[in-house]
This record gives sequence, C-alpha cells and structure tokens, in this order.
Amino acid sequence: MNRPSFRYPNTRPEVRVDEARTLPAAYYTDPELFRRELAAIHYAMWLHAGRSEQLPEPGSFFTVRFAGVNVIVLRNAAGAIVAFHNTCRHRGTLLCKEAAGTLPGRIRCAYHAWTYDLDGQLLSAPNMEKVIGFDRADYPLGRVACAEWDGHIFINLAPRPQPFAEYLGGLDAKFAPWRMAELKRVERKVYHLNANWKLVIQNYSECLHCPIAHPLLNQYSHYLSGDNEPPRPTWLGGRMDLRDGVETLSLDGKSGRPPLPGLAPEDRRRVYYYALLPNLLLNLHPDYMLTFELWPIAVDRTDIVCDWHFHPEAIARADFDPAGAIEFWDLTNRQDWELSDLAQAGIATRGYRPGPYSNREELLLALDRFVLERLARADAEPSA
Amino acid sequence: MNRPSFRYPNTRPEVRVDEARTLPAAYYTDPELFRRELAAIHYAMWLHAGRSEQLPEPGSFFTVRFAGVNVIVLRNAAGAIVAFHNTCRHRGTLLCKEAAGTLPGRIRCAYHAWTYDLDGQLLSAPNMEKVIGFDRADYPLGRVACAEWDGHIFINLAPRPQPFAEYLGGLDAKFAPWRMAELKRVERKVYHLNANWKLVIQNYSECLHCPIAHPLLNQYSHYLSGDNEPPRPTWLGGRMDLRDGVETLSLDGKSGRPPLPGLAPEDRRRVYYYALLPNLLLNLHPDYMLTFELWPIAVDRTDIVCDWHFHPEAIARADFDPAGAIEFWDLTNRQDWELSDLAQAGIATRGYRPGPYSNREELLLALDRFVLERLARADAEPSA
Amino acid sequence: MNRPSFRYPNTRPEVRVDEARTLPAAYYTDPELFRRELAAIHYAMWLHAGRSEQLPEPGSFFTVRFAGVNVIVLRNAAGAIVAFHNTCRHRGTLLCKEAAGTLPGRIRCAYHAWTYDLDGQLLSAPNMEKVIGFDRADYPLGRVACAEWDGHIFINLAPRPQPFAEYLGGLDAKFAPWRMAELKRVERKVYHLNANWKLVIQNYSECLHCPIAHPLLNQYSHYLSGDNEPPRPTWLGGRMDLRDGVETLSLDGKSGRPPLPGLAPEDRRRVYYYALLPNLLLNLHPDYMLTFELWPIAVDRTDIVCDWHFHPEAIARADFDPAGAIEFWDLTNRQDWELSDLAQAGIATRGYRPGPYSNREELLLALDRFVLERLARADAEPSA
Repeated sequence: MNRPSFRYPNTRPEVRVDEARTLPAAYYTDPELFRRELAAIHYAMWLHAGRSEQLPEPGSFFTVRFAGVNVIVLRNAAGAIVAFHNTCRHRGTLLCKEAAGTLPGRIRCAYHAWTYDLDGQLLSAPNMEKVIGFDRADYPLGRVACAEWDGHIFINLAPRPQPFAEYLGGLDAKFAPWRMAELKRVERKVYHLNANWKLVIQNYSECLHCPIAHPLLNQYSHYLSGDNEPPRPTWLGGRMDLRDGVETLSLDGKSGRPPLPGLAPEDRRRVYYYALLPNLLLNLHPDYMLTFELWPIAVDRTDIVCDWHFHPEAIARADFDPAGAIEFWDLTNRQDWELSDLAQAGIATRGYRPGPYSNREELLLALDRFVLERLARADAEPSA
Repeated sequence: MNRPSFRYPNTRPEVRVDEARTLPAAYYTDPELFRRELAAIHYAMWLHAGRSEQLPEPGSFFTVRFAGVNVIVLRNAAGAIVAFHNTCRHRGTLLCKEAAGTLPGRIRCAYHAWTYDLDGQLLSAPNMEKVIGFDRADYPLGRVACAEWDGHIFINLAPRPQPFAEYLGGLDAKFAPWRMAELKRVERKVYHLNANWKLVIQNYSECLHCPIAHPLLNQYSHYLSGDNEPPRPTWLGGRMDLRDGVETLSLDGKSGRPPLPGLAPEDRRRVYYYALLPNLLLNLHPDYMLTFELWPIAVDRTDIVCDWHFHPEAIARADFDPAGAIEFWDLTNRQDWELSDLAQAGIATRGYRPGPYSNREELLLALDRFVLERLARADAEPSA
Repeated sequence: MNRPSFRYPNTRPEVRVDEARTLPAAYYTDPELFRRELAAIHYAMWLHAGRSEQLPEPGSFFTVRFAGVNVIVLRNAAGAIVAFHNTCRHRGTLLCKEAAGTLPGRIRCAYHAWTYDLDGQLLSAPNMEKVIGFDRADYPLGRVACAEWDGHIFINLAPRPQPFAEYLGGLDAKFAPWRMAELKRVERKVYHLNANWKLVIQNYSECLHCPIAHPLLNQYSHYLSGDNEPPRPTWLGGRMDLRDGVETLSLDGKSGRPPLPGLAPEDRRRVYYYALLPNLLLNLHPDYMLTFELWPIAVDRTDIVCDWHFHPEAIARADFDPAGAIEFWDLTNRQDWELSDLAQAGIATRGYRPGPYSNREELLLALDRFVLERLARADAEPSA
C-alpha cells in the first residue's frame, strides 16, 4: 500500500532534506520551553473555548481550564457572550469551581461576597468603606476577549488580540455553506494524552500514517486523496475524498442522514480537516461536524475534548443514530492518541535525533516554523 | 448582613488602597520562593510540635515531619523534653520511622546499630576501632532546640534560636488563666490542603467571611464582635464574643461542661483566636482549647493537625460528650479549607492581580509584611 | 555480636576520620546532580542489560528502560547481539513498546512504516521520493554498543566506549570456573525503591549491617568472614565464607543441588559479591548465581531487577526446588531495600551531615570517589 500511487501522484513541491526536519527534543520535553510556548502562543492567540449552544440564556456559563488558565465564559444580561478570568479581584479566590452552570444574574465570590455583574463590573465589596482611595470601578473582573464564528466561541487572553476576522483568514466564508451555527452537540468524549500538544496537531496534519494505523479510515477515504491548502499564519488544512459508495465516515461508511443543507455536491463527497492554531481541529463531514479542543496541561500532557455535532433536523428524526459516527472516530482517535504517546516516549529518549519530513508532511513543517517564529517574536518583544 | 453595623462600627484605622494589597502570585506558586520562606521562617522560628502529654514517660517520642524536616521529640531519662534530627550520624539513616512510640532507653539505628542515649550522645559505634581520629563524643545526634509553655512543646531548628520568652511576647501571662497545661487531648483530625500555608493563616485572621461561609459560627458569635490586638512580631490575634445564650462553640451552642477553672467572667463569654507564627493557631473557648499545627509540604500543599483539648474534670464526668465541639469545628474547618484551596486555585491563574485589603484585614497585611521582612532579613544575612 | 572478633580480626588498613566521610546530601537529593551523574556514569559506561538466553533466536528482543533511555537489544539475522535506540529516525516514535518479544526479521515503525533490518539499516521509508538529498543509508537506527561475557549482555551508550575487556578488568578470567554462560534463569523479581542508586551499591558493599538486619544471612555466613579485593576502577567486590554445615544461602542453608561443575573446592564454601559499576550486582553461590540490575529512575528512585540462575542439570532433576534460594534472597532483599529507603529519607532531611565510614566500609568510600572522579572528568571534558 506504500507504493507510489498512479491515481494520486506526489505532485506537492519537493523539499530539501536539510531544510525539512523535525524539531529538537527540547520542544517536546523541556518545561521551560513549554512555558515560553504558552506565553508566545496559547496566551497570545485565539482559542476555541466551546459552542454558543452551551450558553442558552443570560447567566449560562462554562469554564476553560488549562496550564495556568481558568476563564469563565458566560452569556451576559444583554445576551452577548463575554469571558473573564476566574479569580476575584479581592484576594484572588476562584469564583466558579464548576465546569458549567447558570449564574443568578451576578457572580458572587464564595469567600467575602464581592459581587460582580455579568459584565464583570464590581457591584458590591463589603467592608471596604474605610479603605482610602478604593473605588469599585477600579476592580472589574479581568476581561478576556471573546468572539463568535458560526456557533463557535473563541477566547483570547492577550491584552490586544489580533482582529478575529484576520485570525479566521477566510475560513468563515469558506465554511459558510456548512451553516455550523445550526448544528447541535450530541456527544462529548474527553481524552488525556501523555504527549505534547504539537504532536497531536502533527498527527492530524498528515494521513501518511492512515493505511498503517487506520485501516477503516483508509478503506473509506484514500490516504492520498484530496489535497492540502498552502499553510496560513493561523491555520493549516486540507480535504480528503470519500471513496465511491461511501456516504460518510462511520463504522459502516453509511450515514442514514441527509447531507447538511446547503452543501455543494462536491462537498458531499469530501471530509475537510482544518487545524485552527493552536487549539481547534475541525472535521467537516457531509452530514456532521467533529471538533477537537486541545488543552496543553504540561510539556508532555494534553487533554482533548472531542465533540460530535449534527443537524437538528437529523437529530429530530425517529431513526437518528449517531453511534456509527461516534464509534468510528472514537476508534480512530484512540489509534492516533496511542501513536502520539509513542512519539512523545521516543522523542524523550537520548536516542532521538531530528528526522526528515516527507514533502507530504509540509503542514507539519509549517507548524514547526509557526512555533519557532512565535517564540522568536515573543523573545524580541518586551513582555506584555 | 454586610451592611455597616451600628452595634459594631468599623473603628479600626483606615488603610490606603495602594499600601494594603495582597502579595504577588509567586508567593503562592513559586517553589523557589517557598524554599526561601522555609529557610527564613520555618527553619528559623519556634514551631509548635505537640503537647507534653504526648510524652508521658522517659523514652516516649513523636516525630515532626514537614518539607525537608524530620525531628524526633522525646522525653529523656531525666524527664526533660528534648529533640533531635531524625538521622543517624553514621550514614544518615532515618532513626525512628514511626510517628510516635516508646524508645527502650536508647535510640538505635536499624542499619549498623549506632546507638545514642536519650540525650543524643553516641554510646556505641561498632567497627569504628580502626578509624583514626574517631571520637564518639564528636557524633551526637543533631540537637534541635526545645521549649515548653503550659503543656505546649515547641521546637526550633535554628542554631541560635530567639529566646523563647521573647517569642511568646507576653502570651504566657495573658493565657495563664486558661491553665492549658492541665488540658488533655480528646480528638485529633488531620487535614491535607492544596493551599499555601499563608492562605491558612490569612483565612484564620479575619472573620469577614464568616457570615458567608460559616452561618453557624456567625449565629453563635457575631463576625464583627470583639477586637484584634495590634500585630506583634511573632503573633497575631484577637477575640470574638459569644452571643447571648450561647455557651460555647458547638453544634448547638451549648457546652454541658463547666467553664475552665480560673477564667475571669468576661472570658467565659469570649473565644480567643491567636496565630503564633508560623505554625500554631490557638483557639481558646470557655470550656475547651483547639489547636491547629500547620505543616508546609510544598508551595501549594499544607497539612493541618487539629486537636481538641478538654479539662480532665470534664472528661471524667459520666455525661462528658465532646462531639458537639468536635463536629462544630470539623464542619467549620472544612468550610475554611475549601476556601483556602479555592484561593490557591484562583491565585495560580494568569488572571490574578494583587487586590486591596479591607481595614478589617489588618492582620493579613501584617502577615504579608512579616513574610517580606523575614525574607529580606534572610537575604541580607550570610547564610547560617 | 558487635564486639571485636578474635576469629575475624580487623586487619584492613586504617582510615582517617577526616578523609573517609559520606557524601553531602545533594548527591542523593538534587535532580541536577542526578542528571550530571547519568551523563558521566550511566550514559558513559557499560551497563548490564540482560542475559544471552533472553534472545534465543534471530529477531528475539528485549528493551532496556531507565531515566532518559530506551534501548532495543536483539539478536540479528547472523545470530549476533546488537542494540539500538528505540526511536524511529523519521519522527522519533518509539519502535518497540513491549518489554520483550520477537521481531519478524525487521523493525517496522507503527506510525509510518519506516522499516529497518535487524542491523538497524533503513530498508524502506515510504513517501520520501520527493525529498531532495534523502538517502536511506543516512538513517540507520542509533547504534548502541553491545558486548557479551559468559552469558551476560552489556550495552554502552557512549559514542566511543571503553574497551569491554578493560572494563571487565580480569573478572572474566576470575569467574570463568563458574561457567555462567551455561546457567538458566529460573526466577525474576522486580523491586521499586525510593532510594538513590548509590545507596543500593553502598548497602551491597558492606556486611556490617548483616548481624543487625539479616539474622538468617549472618547465621549462614559470618558477617566478618572472607575479604574484599582492593577497589578497581570499574568494579568493587569481595567474598564471604559459608559457615560449617551450611551448603548455600537458602532458607535452611541446604542446597539439594550439586555444586556448579568446575568450581574449586574452596569456592564451594564461599559466596562472591561483586558490583560491576554502575549497575550490576553479581552474587555467585556454590550452586547458583544471583544478578541484580540497578536502573536509576530519578534522584530518589531506583528499580532493581533481580534474577536467580541455576545450572540446567540441576533444573532438569525431578527434585529441583529453587524456592529456598529465591525466598532467602527475597527476604534479604526486602530488608536491604527498606534500609536503603530509610537512608534516603534520613539523608533528605535538614539534619543530615556527612558521617564517618568504618575502615571496613572501604568499598563505599571507593564508590563515592569513583562518582566524584567521573563527575570531575566529565566536567573537564567538552561534552560528547
């Protein structure tokens, strides 16, 4: 199966072996480099935090937690989505300890009852009447930037975030036909990996391993089919074709659902795989959407939240059965996570040397260069 | 309940918002700062280690264990309390692995039978006859200073400890009427917190959170009642009043025990809360004593040993029932430890900024200043 | 039992108390010093990896795993034993995740099917046809030096290993009569210690603790019997005598087996204890061999693999019963590991001070000097 394919010739640009090599081990094993990556990338870029449907009404909230970060994302009284650091301005206490829930119109600290409105303004701070110079207006919750795109909620921890439209880089127009805002989450699985976050994106960004690791996937979608787009500053992506007779990616290759409304005929025969850096992997199938949020926990640990989203009309049907799609990807995910863990384990040994990328691994090289450039830029800047 | 109280007006000195702020996050999250604190504070000051009654006879011992420390506290042949580093002078082996017990008149290392008397003198060191210059007198156990106050045992790891009376700073005279030496331990609970040790003392040093977090405590003792003493170099403390009809702090506010003998009438209506820095919290009720030993384990972990002590005459009575007092404080403790853990969690996030103290949080500010001053002094000194 | 013995006078050279002291605590507690030790010692010297019988045929392999290391040891097509870093030259993935097994004539990476022959040559690297300058010959598996001695397999991670015969330093001739190559493993026990690797060798290198910690061992073999050899650059060792009537070290002191063929009469009355630095402890009894592999995991954690090996003629006998030998050493091992853990715990406290060695602990002093010299030499060299 690894012989050159006549149907899918290798037409991507050649690369030079001395210019296209994996990163040194420290990028996967050094806690200090991990901290620098967080500062240069995760604390500086837009991050997928959840879906608008998770916040059905004013006061609905969920929290986003990863290395050094805890943020409340909520729907305010006006119905807008806003986000705040989950820490009281008095003595720092965590405000919301639950993963999700509903706030009664205000956020009250459990410690001393400092109370904020749903826009983060400090409404009440008991016992501060004899503090000279104290003004409630000076102590709003720490604001975290928020943006929505077609049902996706993104947050940004930077003081001056990149404009969101610039971050999306045209993906909003490209994926408009999928009408993602209409889709509803049906299933969530959370995975805990012993692997650096970059290994997950690298695993996602090439399908050369598919005939070896994912026989079922390769049976339904040829690993050399489709093509990648040229790498962009904020995303990497491509598409693959479904083989003849295959309706979608599910255990039996059948869908049993209508395709998403509005899809062009050719997009009913394709699966799109896009990595919005640094934390969203977006799989668009003819009949459902799969999202992966990547949360770095430590240099060698990443949590992944994987959600399956379907169209409400499909969900409403009596014969709606998402199990085949869920089990297909749960199986495929576990195959990938094991490979990512093995990559981490091997890179962490003394024997590891940076190795050569194939020219079909151009997105991995783009990811590495993205990381190096962000680190270099952050080092050159005075710290924010 | 947080409206200004006419019965308990806020008469403490005003503070300025720019001068009374919580510490930066590193003081709660940085392992290196934790090590500096240990060296400047815990390894340099008197520490509450236990109670004299725990050492009923010559050879009785218990061990004290926290970050980097393991000390044997024992009663020697002459009946005095002494303390030693729990490590053999031969090859460093831990001598007593149990938490408490009775030594047979000597301390014998399980490895090579180096044997010490109960004053730490090396009695026997087998197979050293051909070691030129070896003199048993040169290898006593490492001495740790020891002191007793009214039944309390303190140890001090410094080579030249502060005089103990100076450390007590008058508390011995102040609390003499409680005749603490007579009291007997009835219950011990050990708690494991995911919080920096300072957060526990800060939680202890103000009752502004009581109406929010401790409704039962506030029902029996108004959170604004009583007053604090001005902060001292080695302790912080104050008292609160029991409300009318309340006899003591217990589940139902009743005691069922006579007050401690020797208490002045006004002290039968009060609870005293004193923090002897850095590791003893001392609660004196009309009819019992509660002690908390704080043991720092890591920058974000603290173990707390909480003991309930009663008068032997009360204990001897057929109707003696300490359950109400034990359950009241176990409940209150768990409320406090959860808040301390939430404070740690919030401070450890990127969103934390130092916040303003109330003028009624003056003891917390005093604690912070104590820490900063000890660190500054330790940095200025050549290391001991 | 610790009185000077008339039968076994202390005739070893005297030592001076100021020249023969244990190492400072950092050598047992500092992760950075541990990393320096690994680089200077474990990554630079020959390490016992296993026994030839573990690789019965071409393709048989086992893996060696310790701090920062994962190596595949295997028998190649020509029947020779070879070793490689267990990491793919493409993207670093771990190649063999099992502890042992059989390879089908080649080593294939589970990720992208890069395939190596059993000599580590890269046979196949799919999808690299458009990588300019890529030559499979440039990407063999990382070679790890290998050597065999009488059935023992050693590996060496250094680029230019010390000649193996020089490393053995005459032990091959000395122990030839035991014909260790013929012996077969009958039992393996793996122990996990909370102790630095040096404490295990120190425990092994003196029997002064035997009358205290190992009453059964001392009953069968007097702790002052036998003698040590002068320390060598790569090994430390000595022998002890079996007491009259004792046939071997087993629960009842009986063997039930013939002595190993070829042993001189005096060697049927002795047990030899040799530490091949830094990771093999070799116990040679009249009728069986015991081996300990020491694997440093962290500064305060060591894994020990203990194997019991017997002669095939003894194993073939209907009445073969190794239980007495296995249980004798399992008991003795557990006594030693507890002492090593107690030594680690005591050394890690603030009370520890370097202490004086007995002149009968000369091998421990030799071990310490070996470590210091290797560290000093490594610091003086430009890194390899």
